[in-house]
Amino acid sequence: MTQQKQIDGKQVAEHNDRDKGVWIVVHGHVYDVTDFLDEHPGGAEIILRYAGMDATEEYEPIHPPDAIKDNLDPSKHIGQLIPNSLPKPQAASPAPPPASISVPQKTTSATGEPVAEEYVKPPLEEILSLHDFEAVARRTMSRRGWNYYSSGADDEITMRENHNAYHRLWFRPRILRNVGVVDFSTEILGYKSSMPVYITATALGKLGHPEGEVCLTRAAAEHNIIQMIPTLASCSFDEMVDAASPGQIQFMQLYVNSDRSRTNKIILHAKERGVKALFITVDAPQLGRREKDMRTKFEGTASAQQATGKDNFRRDQGAARAISSFIDPSLNWTDLGELMEAAKGMKVILKGVQCWEDAVRAAEAGCDGVVLSNHGGRQLDFAPSPLAILPSVVSALQSRGFMSRHPSQPKFEIFVDGGVRRATDVLKAVALGATAVGIGRPMIYAMSTYGQEGVSKALQILKDEFEMNMRLLGAPTMADVVPSMVDTSALHAPSGEVTMYDENCESAI
Amino acid sequence: MTQQKQIDGKQVAEHNDRDKGVWIVVHGHVYDVTDFLDEHPGGAEIILRYAGMDATEEYEPIHPPDAIKDNLDPSKHIGQLIPNSLPKPQAASPAPPPASISVPQKTTSATGEPVAEEYVKPPLEEILSLHDFEAVARRTMSRRGWNYYSSGADDEITMRENHNAYHRLWFRPRILRNVGVVDFSTEILGYKSSMPVYITATALGKLGHPEGEVCLTRAAAEHNIIQMIPTLASCSFDEMVDAASPGQIQFMQLYVNSDRSRTNKIILHAKERGVKALFITVDAPQLGRREKDMRTKFEGTASAQQATGKDNFRRDQGAARAISSFIDPSLNWTDLGELMEAAKGMKVILKGVQCWEDAVRAAEAGCDGVVLSNHGGRQLDFAPSPLAILPSVVSALQSRGFMSRHPSQPKFEIFVDGGVRRATDVLKAVALGATAVGIGRPMIYAMSTYGQEGVSKALQILKDEFEMNMRLLGAPTMADVVPSMVDTSALHAPSGEVTMYDENCESAI
Amino acid sequence: MTQQKQIDGKQVAEHNDRDKGVWIVVHGHVYDVTDFLDEHPGGAEIILRYAGMDATEEYEPIHPPDAIKDNLDPSKHIGQLIPNSLPKPQAASPAPPPASISVPQKTTSATGEPVAEEYVKPPLEEILSLHDFEAVARRTMSRRGWNYYSSGADDEITMRENHNAYHRLWFRPRILRNVGVVDFSTEILGYKSSMPVYITATALGKLGHPEGEVCLTRAAAEHNIIQMIPTLASCSFDEMVDAASPGQIQFMQLYVNSDRSRTNKIILHAKERGVKALFITVDAPQLGRREKDMRTKFEGTASAQQATGKDNFRRDQGAARAISSFIDPSLNWTDLGELMEAAKGMKVILKGVQCWEDAVRAAEAGCDGVVLSNHGGRQLDFAPSPLAILPSVVSALQSRGFMSRHPSQPKFEIFVDGGVRRATDVLKAVALGATAVGIGRPMIYAMSTYGQEGVSKALQILKDEFEMNMRLLGAPTMADVVPSMVDTSALHAPSGEVTMYDENCESAI
Amino acid sequence: MTQQKQIDGKQVAEHNDRDKGVWIVVHGHVYDVTDFLDEHPGGAEIILRYAGMDATEEYEPIHPPDAIKDNLDPSKHIGQLIPNSLPKPQAASPAPPPASISVPQKTTSATGEPVAEEYVKPPLEEILSLHDFEAVARRTMSRRGWNYYSSGADDEITMRENHNAYHRLWFRPRILRNVGVVDFSTEILGYKSSMPVYITATALGKLGHPEGEVCLTRAAAEHNIIQMIPTLASCSFDEMVDAASPGQIQFMQLYVNSDRSRTNKIILHAKERGVKALFITVDAPQLGRREKDMRTKFEGTASAQQATGKDNFRRDQGAARAISSFIDPSLNWTDLGELMEAAKGMKVILKGVQCWEDAVRAAEAGCDGVVLSNHGGRQLDFAPSPLAILPSVVSALQSRGFMSRHPSQPKFEIFVDGGVRRATDVLKAVALGATAVGIGRPMIYAMSTYGQEGVSKALQILKDEFEMNMRLLGAPTMADVVPSMVDTSALHAPSGEVTMYDENCESAI
Repeated sequence: MTQQKQIDGKQVAEHNDRDKGVWIVVHGHVYDVTDFLDEHPGGAEIILRYAGMDATEEYEPIHPPDAIKDNLDPSKHIGQLIPNSLPKPQAASPAPPPASISVPQKTTSATGEPVAEEYVKPPLEEILSLHDFEAVARRTMSRRGWNYYSSGADDEITMRENHNAYHRLWFRPRILRNVGVVDFSTEILGYKSSMPVYITATALGKLGHPEGEVCLTRAAAEHNIIQMIPTLASCSFDEMVDAASPGQIQFMQLYVNSDRSRTNKIILHAKERGVKALFITVDAPQLGRREKDMRTKFEGTASAQQATGKDNFRRDQGAARAISSFIDPSLNWTDLGELMEAAKGMKVILKGVQCWEDAVRAAEAGCDGVVLSNHGGRQLDFAPSPLAILPSVVSALQSRGFMSRHPSQPKFEIFVDGGVRRATDVLKAVALGATAVGIGRPMIYAMSTYGQEGVSKALQILKDEFEMNMRLLGAPTMADVVPSMVDTSALHAPSGEVTMYDENCESAI
Repeated sequence: MTQQKQIDGKQVAEHNDRDKGVWIVVHGHVYDVTDFLDEHPGGAEIILRYAGMDATEEYEPIHPPDAIKDNLDPSKHIGQLIPNSLPKPQAASPAPPPASISVPQKTTSATGEPVAEEYVKPPLEEILSLHDFEAVARRTMSRRGWNYYSSGADDEITMRENHNAYHRLWFRPRILRNVGVVDFSTEILGYKSSMPVYITATALGKLGHPEGEVCLTRAAAEHNIIQMIPTLASCSFDEMVDAASPGQIQFMQLYVNSDRSRTNKIILHAKERGVKALFITVDAPQLGRREKDMRTKFEGTASAQQATGKDNFRRDQGAARAISSFIDPSLNWTDLGELMEAAKGMKVILKGVQCWEDAVRAAEAGCDGVVLSNHGGRQLDFAPSPLAILPSVVSALQSRGFMSRHPSQPKFEIFVDGGVRRATDVLKAVALGATAVGIGRPMIYAMSTYGQEGVSKALQILKDEFEMNMRLLGAPTMADVVPSMVDTSALHAPSGEVTMYDENCESAI
Repeated sequence: MTQQKQIDGKQVAEHNDRDKGVWIVVHGHVYDVTDFLDEHPGGAEIILRYAGMDATEEYEPIHPPDAIKDNLDPSKHIGQLIPNSLPKPQAASPAPPPASISVPQKTTSATGEPVAEEYVKPPLEEILSLHDFEAVARRTMSRRGWNYYSSGADDEITMRENHNAYHRLWFRPRILRNVGVVDFSTEILGYKSSMPVYITATALGKLGHPEGEVCLTRAAAEHNIIQMIPTLASCSFDEMVDAASPGQIQFMQLYVNSDRSRTNKIILHAKERGVKALFITVDAPQLGRREKDMRTKFEGTASAQQATGKDNFRRDQGAARAISSFIDPSLNWTDLGELMEAAKGMKVILKGVQCWEDAVRAAEAGCDGVVLSNHGGRQLDFAPSPLAILPSVVSALQSRGFMSRHPSQPKFEIFVDGGVRRATDVLKAVALGATAVGIGRPMIYAMSTYGQEGVSKALQILKDEFEMNMRLLGAPTMADVVPSMVDTSALHAPSGEVTMYDENCESAI
Repeated sequence: MTQQKQIDGKQVAEHNDRDKGVWIVVHGHVYDVTDFLDEHPGGAEIILRYAGMDATEEYEPIHPPDAIKDNLDPSKHIGQLIPNSLPKPQAASPAPPPASISVPQKTTSATGEPVAEEYVKPPLEEILSLHDFEAVARRTMSRRGWNYYSSGADDEITMRENHNAYHRLWFRPRILRNVGVVDFSTEILGYKSSMPVYITATALGKLGHPEGEVCLTRAAAEHNIIQMIPTLASCSFDEMVDAASPGQIQFMQLYVNSDRSRTNKIILHAKERGVKALFITVDAPQLGRREKDMRTKFEGTASAQQATGKDNFRRDQGAARAISSFIDPSLNWTDLGELMEAAKGMKVILKGVQCWEDAVRAAEAGCDGVVLSNHGGRQLDFAPSPLAILPSVVSALQSRGFMSRHPSQPKFEIFVDGGVRRATDVLKAVALGATAVGIGRPMIYAMSTYGQEGVSKALQILKDEFEMNMRLLGAPTMADVVPSMVDTSALHAPSGEVTMYDENCESAI
């Protein structure tokens, strides 16, 4: 990079609205984003809020490092900020804020005890289950990060149902089988995995940990687990591939851009870098409303607003809305051929299938598999849980000859994600016909609380649980985890969850 | 109006019981209501309480402005009160009141946090869902208004079930459909609506906002939504029609009076003023017991009672009972022909149908549609939720040829109301065969908290939700919202709600 | 009664154990109960506790006035106590009692608010539902009385299920029927009743109100309701008959004594006094364990025990166990003929039938009806709710020709009791085939809180609810309350109630 | 035993790691456990923690007295410790511990009242049900003991379901049967029992009471109840047999060791000592993860760790993991013949069968019965409750001729255990076909709170409940407790329990 122009902060500060032009500072560089405002995936408002100011702190956790360079024409790179030259924002008088319908941090511990003010994170050795990471994350993550990860669409019924559905399946364990040695390794799309689990794609990892998604990459390597690289990671794609160990298998999740050349470029680059399978997200033509996340924006924004005197932007968009515009809502079955052509050599899987009809259509279209998923309950509230629809999907595919348990035959593979917290959850899905399950939030919580070491511990916990539970099920290998080992008679139950409405409900007396 | 007689307050004060005659003051005018006492829809007691006194504050929010003039013979209009001439009620000694089985204002916020004493209403931009309006309304409305709107019959089981039923339906979303553009407009009884939603009739709007129902009229115009004008509005019928924009569609809800000439007059007037459809309420031959509302009357009444020394009136009637006598409990199928004749030129719909047999009979009788409704859970407790009976109603009508999805054919239309809080709720009802849904309480809560602007925001929220959810469902138009998009297998579930009884229950240990 | 011997209290005090003989004082009379100890229905222990002492306070609420005279040979009537001659029990040092697994009075109000120390009973006009009486009773009754009435067997699952079952039935209301006049009167076993409700037998009324069951008698007369006289009343049978108005209908509940001559005497006496029907209790060969009631005995007993130095009696028996031995556990079908013979001229009904097989057998044996009842959940925990078995009972009787809706035909009648709190509950039972329902606890709570006036108000509330709900159901008379007006599809649900176990349960985290 | 060498504590203290050798002191004797470290069933870590120290306090409650002698070669018995010669551990500075995801003692009483600091155990006479013992145990046991006994696998769903399942069965009681005398005695595998209940095997009794399992033995004798001797008792096998009364029947539970000669020795010894039946545990090829128990280890360990400076051992194993390695995970059906051969003369039952297929296989293999059990919910979470599978097991065995109610025919017997708290629970299982039920935790809680007297009281409570409930059921003998007395229609319900996940859940508002 050539010697850059030195820019005084006072000059930056003058470019603070559309008329005068909008400049912002990121990592010491000054950019003119006036023309980019209306193209910004996250909307113009969030940029206008930092017009004439340093936006680094806001930019950092939700963009890959080179996002601004890749998206702005080089002519818009104004130069380098002279250090400490930006005028300080005027301190606003500390007026009491109006009441906010916001999400408070819980002030009770996992056990219902009031949390002492000086919460100290427990040592990693005390973490016994994936639930524990979540309990610690809730207490230690930034509110913004916690709200982004933990939120679901609307009233969060689907988000809860994803886990609840597992609670409606009972096992039918077998006894007196030789379980001296149990082997829970499997193959996922032809690639070895130490267990029927992969780390699924989740966005904005740096909201949880400063190193971001590479923590997941490295922990996956430790445990011979496959990582699915997310389109919307905080780390760049190449950082995640570079972080992989030799021979480590990586898949990639793809949001299809309205500009297909951009998408094709991404696919080809992924193929070159050795990514083995492409998971095309089909449940998110628009990113969901996650109200808990949206409320985040109303907190702690007073000072910036007061300092600049601007309040004409909409603040009702959380981290989720800030990253949503890369997605083409017109994507449909007729586009699939082109994408598969571009991905030739990689497996192609549709991620976000939610009924058997679409699973069958995917198989007919030549895909290698589907992920039954509702995007972790973050998109359409009252979408069904993947587990609840799994039996009908398996049945429809088997009756049409797309699935077979015979190892020599070509096999259409089914994955599920959402709500998995225990090896028993995974075993239920596998018994019903899934190849493997994707785990998202628990890995992010492990990463956000203990970094790579946390993720590694989370995977080790799952392995311990697999060993235990396969012994107790009487299933020495994954091939022994068969449909007759689960009782699905109570699978289709009503939700019973009426969370928000109850909140507004008073009893008559 | 001619010059009126000036009346001294001392004279008014002397007419304070049946023997001496009962005079009251409303808006500065003195009325002799002695003969009217036993005709008063709300009962004699409530008037007697203000005998010889100024009743304006009590009268205002629950009567249209001209109600007293329309109902009293001109001879009973005594004259104008000389300002400030009424004797002051004697201050009663502030004795501690007895324990009351009353409904306290919740002292916890929506999040369970204790509410700070100085509750400040959040800015409108922070309102993200229809639930939010309700949460704010609960904290900011007058107790009388909140209790009137939020109460349901008996143990409020049906009121809750109305919403709960939506929680037992899951979607079956479709993927890879072109949802670049989604259009959620529809036709309701042949009239355009920007979404399959109308503002249904609710009474006594001035309990929530001083301007009353015209706020709803104006917000409906902003969003091209149909408003159903209520018989028992606080604003007069003409005020609501006058408030409409040119071309704005309005329907009217009708309670049929025992005096049919009065009803016919109302119908003809409505027709003249351009009302397009008449919704005859058939679920309220008597207005329901709403105990939370009834308890309102026991609060804050001590001083008036003590001042007058009267305590011989029944105080166990809330706002609901005060407006109930306009309704003819003998209304039956044989009366329908006459009403339809009077309404000729308007569509006629029965509002409050609760089983398929009556829906079929309405179709056979030549009605244009029915509203499946239990009056928002305010009438018969344990009436079924509209959603729970919708499939059986549609099936019965279709098998008899009254309903068809073919647009060229005459169509009997089904509406539902009660418990709707989200666009997903609406989409479920439409998928099962409803033309549109009525929304009542949420509009009132939006009006009561933020006026017309609040109602407008509520409608905008619904539009945002429609756009999102139709994309995620894979349904670009309302015609794509079909029965196979919902899973009704868990629709018929027990209530599980035993609210009041639990209150009285102690565990054995 | 002849002039009695005057007895000095010191002499009484010396007869304080089996060896020296046991004397007690009741209402100023001294009795020698040494030989009666082992015949006492409530066990010897409770008498021994008052050996040599005045037992009036304990005796009063749980025995009819003449019980002691009727049961003791005249020779055991020692004489009259010289007033104030009994030695005072020595005051025990107030040692802190050990922890007790006892039932505390709730310190929160019906609304969850902490109860102010100075709880003042609300005026009767504020009572709006039968639930309200219960809420007030819980706060104002003696602990002993509350625990006796409100307790159920074991974990109280059946007691709760009795009411819960009503919550699983939904109505199917009809519209546009002429409900200008509604008539909810009916006939019960051929006798007129102003509504399909009777006051069922409950024991020990003076635990709730000093006048006892005659309050019920008089309130029943006010409302033309039938009262069922209990065997184990605090008032004597004759007091209750004497309290009746001319022409007032009374039934009688009967526990069959091992000594049949005693039972026959009771039956003949009832017949002579004009009782119209005999309800033979068949669900209580032994009175149930009601642990909340049993715990009552552990409270407040320390001083008496310390004063006398006796602690060798079992204290684990509450009010229920104290009255249980009058009942013959060997009573069986072969005894029925003899009882029916004795009752000739009265209707004979079995009270406590719990499955269709026994209802059919009762009809075959010539009974006039059965009460489906589990004794208010006070006997066998997990006995089914009467409502849940009602459809199968009706079906079995109809298919065998024992029941018919045709008024000219002889009719076997079915009653239910337990858990009824609302007219809607009654209407559900009637729709399914019951003639009427018995109401017990709510009447006792009304009596215990407001005496006869409370009971009368409770009955008026039911009438108000009947009028309202029959209008809203579209049923102008009881004959219009038909099976198609209820939806029973969710009637058979699991209980879901695991009250006591949950108490002992901790979550793993 | 010969005169032993006297060992100075300083010498012991020097043997405090693997390099220098590991010595420990137990009951005043010094042992060299260096070579035994990796064979220790509880793992090396727990021993290393006491290297060079006195381990008696840790050793005592979880080992039979002679365990160390039996497992160590005599050459490793170093000698006798000179009293008081061990160096004192250095006091560690009392640093505040980090936050622990641990299980707090509940600070509310059974009634939800805050527990007074000075909790005093109630007198035994106030204990009315088996639940009561548990409530007292929770308040009075050592945390370690409570956590060990009360914990279940993973999220404890199966542990709760074991009891919940009983709550989904309703009775169908019969009336007018002669229940003057009820007899609840039965035969278990041909041996008389005073009721259809036995005390099942539970480990580590001294965690609850210093005398350990002999309390159970003696109380069983008092009540003519059979005790099942556990392999992992704190008392030795011979202590428990010696504690038996003449003629008292005892069974034995067996974990099969990888070293079969050891197992054979145990079987033969049991046979010699008169044990009548062998219950081979088949649901525990590995002992389950009980996280509440595992968390115990993180508490109170700071000082020992700080004193020794060692922290290299894994502390995430509770009492359960400490005793697990005696079990052969490769045990399978082909091993069964050899075990049955060794047990010839005793009945052989498989304990831990969880589906009908394995019950049939056990019958085909010649076993005398099975225990349907999931190990009290301590092994595989989401294993079904024994009650839920009982009907299918009975049906499968009956249709294959293995079971018959005819007394003269050979009979394969079914037992269930887990979740039983009431005689009603037992009666439900017997009605469905079980011979008897095993009760574990409640007996341990009774023992831990009141010793032998407590266990005896617990058994008496069950007898009182049996007498009552059989009367109320209309079943004078166990033969009258038949399938038609229970309604199983709601038996298969979803769990609804999502305990841990809820903990981590926040509502959106």
